[in-house]
Amino acid sequence: MIADIEGLYSTSSHAIRDPEFFKDCKGIKIFPRVEAVGINRKERKLNIRYLDDDRKEEMAYDKLVIATGATPFRPPIPGADLPRVFTVSNLHSAQDIKEILAKGQAAKAVVIGAGAIGIEMAEALTDLWGVETTIIEMADQVLPAALGKHVSKIAENQLEENGVKVILSERVLRINGHPKSGVTSVETSVDSPEGVLDCDLVVMSAGVRPNTKFAAEAGLAVGSSGALLVDRCMRTTDPHIYAGGDCVELRNLVSGENMTMPLGSLANRQGRIIANNIHGRASQFKGTVGTFCIKVFDMGIATAGLTATQAKANGFDPIHAIVAQHDRAHFYPDSQMMFITLIADAKTRKILGIEAVGHQGDAIKARVDAIAPLFQTGLDVDDVCVLETGYAPPYASAMDIINNAGNVLDNILEKRNIPIDVMDFLKKFKAKKIRVLDVREEKEAIPLIEKYNDSWICIPHPELRTRLNEVPKDEPLCLLCGTGARSYECQIMLAQNGFTNTKNLQGGAAMLGAAAPEFT
Amino acid sequence: MIADIEGLYSTSSHAIRDPEFFKDCKGIKIFPRVEAVGINRKERKLNIRYLDDDRKEEMAYDKLVIATGATPFRPPIPGADLPRVFTVSNLHSAQDIKEILAKGQAAKAVVIGAGAIGIEMAEALTDLWGVETTIIEMADQVLPAALGKHVSKIAENQLEENGVKVILSERVLRINGHPKSGVTSVETSVDSPEGVLDCDLVVMSAGVRPNTKFAAEAGLAVGSSGALLVDRCMRTTDPHIYAGGDCVELRNLVSGENMTMPLGSLANRQGRIIANNIHGRASQFKGTVGTFCIKVFDMGIATAGLTATQAKANGFDPIHAIVAQHDRAHFYPDSQMMFITLIADAKTRKILGIEAVGHQGDAIKARVDAIAPLFQTGLDVDDVCVLETGYAPPYASAMDIINNAGNVLDNILEKRNIPIDVMDFLKKFKAKKIRVLDVREEKEAIPLIEKYNDSWICIPHPELRTRLNEVPKDEPLCLLCGTGARSYECQIMLAQNGFTNTKNLQGGAAMLGAAAPEFT
Repeated sequence: MIADIEGLYSTSSHAIRDPEFFKDCKGIKIFPRVEAVGINRKERKLNIRYLDDDRKEEMAYDKLVIATGATPFRPPIPGADLPRVFTVSNLHSAQDIKEILAKGQAAKAVVIGAGAIGIEMAEALTDLWGVETTIIEMADQVLPAALGKHVSKIAENQLEENGVKVILSERVLRINGHPKSGVTSVETSVDSPEGVLDCDLVVMSAGVRPNTKFAAEAGLAVGSSGALLVDRCMRTTDPHIYAGGDCVELRNLVSGENMTMPLGSLANRQGRIIANNIHGRASQFKGTVGTFCIKVFDMGIATAGLTATQAKANGFDPIHAIVAQHDRAHFYPDSQMMFITLIADAKTRKILGIEAVGHQGDAIKARVDAIAPLFQTGLDVDDVCVLETGYAPPYASAMDIINNAGNVLDNILEKRNIPIDVMDFLKKFKAKKIRVLDVREEKEAIPLIEKYNDSWICIPHPELRTRLNEVPKDEPLCLLCGTGARSYECQIMLAQNGFTNTKNLQGGAAMLGAAAPEFT
Repeated sequence: MIADIEGLYSTSSHAIRDPEFFKDCKGIKIFPRVEAVGINRKERKLNIRYLDDDRKEEMAYDKLVIATGATPFRPPIPGADLPRVFTVSNLHSAQDIKEILAKGQAAKAVVIGAGAIGIEMAEALTDLWGVETTIIEMADQVLPAALGKHVSKIAENQLEENGVKVILSERVLRINGHPKSGVTSVETSVDSPEGVLDCDLVVMSAGVRPNTKFAAEAGLAVGSSGALLVDRCMRTTDPHIYAGGDCVELRNLVSGENMTMPLGSLANRQGRIIANNIHGRASQFKGTVGTFCIKVFDMGIATAGLTATQAKANGFDPIHAIVAQHDRAHFYPDSQMMFITLIADAKTRKILGIEAVGHQGDAIKARVDAIAPLFQTGLDVDDVCVLETGYAPPYASAMDIINNAGNVLDNILEKRNIPIDVMDFLKKFKAKKIRVLDVREEKEAIPLIEKYNDSWICIPHPELRTRLNEVPKDEPLCLLCGTGARSYECQIMLAQNGFTNTKNLQGGAAMLGAAAPEFT
């Protein structure tokens, strides 16, 4: 997206951030091409090595700040060291990849790992450079660390619809190629010709490892991730040494456990905290709720807190609502459908996580940002129901999707709403274990009735009260409307009339169509 | 914007919300054209009157919910009852105005009051119908209840740039016209031909009054606004009677005082709270932080909490930062400048209010929504500095504007940043009481140096350390850069070198140009 690579290391006032800039504008001396190789903590001296002439020196400090970041992990796959097998973490690798693309030397690419970097690279390769791109991911979904299976399915479809091939639950066994001209194909465990993917470019996106070796050797404590342990003042286990950014562990404020969260935004905020403390002013960085967002072609995804899987692993009893609603007043011309998954602990009703996806990224991020900072205050479902966000029809519904996510979760917790998730529904429907009672207008249901015959019944919501005799009573029934709101009202009314065999499809036809486009 | 008026009273699934709809879909009986005229609280009976035949009846209740809303206030100006003098609060008045416009019967309009309704009507009249529109406002700014003077100046300029004439600090003395054909002109207190504005349509936007007469007569307590007093369960002073929406007072969670906040969003959330309580489930609505947003042509404005004026009136000691920054990574193609005013109490450092304005409305609202719900948790400046919102370059800067608003306010509170506001600067600069030291690149300063001669000096930031001898020492000096960040660094460096005569222009050239376009 950024034509000129200098734009990426310039300030907003177009000054290039080189050593001169730091000297003239900030009064900071930069030592480029110098490696920190050790710390003499007793004498407060840093051992450095000049890369150009291998000269070694000591550098005295009063306070030391370690901001060495992280390095992309290169999985030990045979062929991982071939030319044209890249990891991406800095401008140099971006430059190298761009050069190959600009010369038209890459027609097919394989991206290993469907995390944020992998997806962003797949988008750039496909969208900007027309490279035929395949993502291979070991987990059974994209963005496994950030998303549950419903929103991730929408992201996966978005990638496929935009020409990225996504292969899940699969691993790369070997990268083939020539030591000089580079990669020619990637081999998966699928034992057939389809298991070998021809390509002339491989991007590895398998996470990062903190650059903490020299610090750990100096006796500073590191966590299970290998990143440095710091207190809330960003002090390491040595009170004269601070650390921040991708080389430290942070407290996850929802789970209470340590984690790494390699994001420039957190690093920037930590920088100021460290500076305050060094200058004698108490200042704290309490941790992270793991807020994350990503653009996937013309779709925005944002998330915070724990996924249901992570919540379970941390001893919670997660329960979730999936809500589909327009991102502004539904009558407003540019309104678009968005989807939110809201996750709470069933026992305490405390909110554990949120995932949002839709086509207007700012509006998606807004919903997550509105509740994520409240996680650490013990936000519960009831708080979300009345959460006060700005309202005007060009920007929100009077009852915003975020409030409705709270309301639906409340309804589920109170057992008024008996839901079924779209992925579960699809399994059961395909196995003919559940029929659909579509309560939308008949004209909306007709294409599906024609396709699925008596597996798909339609009784419009306004007629349901007077047509109860037509509702099947002794078999599981999935109620479906546009978004899940009307079908919920029908579920209550049916229950009042003795029909307790229904499940309400979370997110309705909107979610169904987003997860399984054949139903649109 | 909405072509078909039915869209405004239809559900998102295109069902028209008429009495039939409520009966069939919700099981609710609607009595249209029936007025509530009194309450027999002792016997729990509502006195009603059928408007069509003046028949009176009693209606028994177990629980009563008052949701009578509010009516626009029609100031007692001579001529206020002339034809074509409108207030706007429902579809009927919208319909009536639209009919006049569609027939081409209005060429010039006057809007009385620059509140939300007045501004939205001015936009519709100008933008959609090409009507020459003037807004007259008694206060010295637009949106006086929602904004401080800096963001309101940007809104005022936005109106003017889009063809709406704005007259401030002025009142309407009389509306002239004919009892049959309607309004012909509006007279202000300006005693000259310019004081009389020809027009064929007047829209009064002077706030609303709650519809609580019958309830107050029944002995239910009302506040100073005339709206009903309710507890957190939305119960009036009669435990069998609930109330919600525009006819109740709410607690302002920042000031602690009662206020009215007539917004459909709050009414909707209250509806569910009332229903929960009626059904025996404790459920609370604690109040409002006054979150508000509005679209003004292609600009979005959002605000929450108290303005500086309101904060002072409530006994606080408000101090504010004004920050200009891009709404996403500055290098991202569609990034746009946004402005935030962040207000805190100088003694406690607690956040009292926020105002944001810019051209991508979802992004504007996102910043306010991210901190407004935290006001009631005692959010302070330090919390804002590390507030965790989602980061990816298409949606935010690594150090987001919201964090920088906290940082700047912290710098001001710590007296490292000695600021001057743009409106104060303009007054002093025009009176030649302050000169500008522009620390941007020379090419950016040249047009202003040419215009203002030796009142405008330029020493670029990277050269300032070595050109200190050129900095005037014994006179007030306003430091200016693009957004206020570099000039702040210069201010610190100058102070370290004995130059303590400087003020830092809040929001820099971006804010100056937005408030006073002649400086761009």
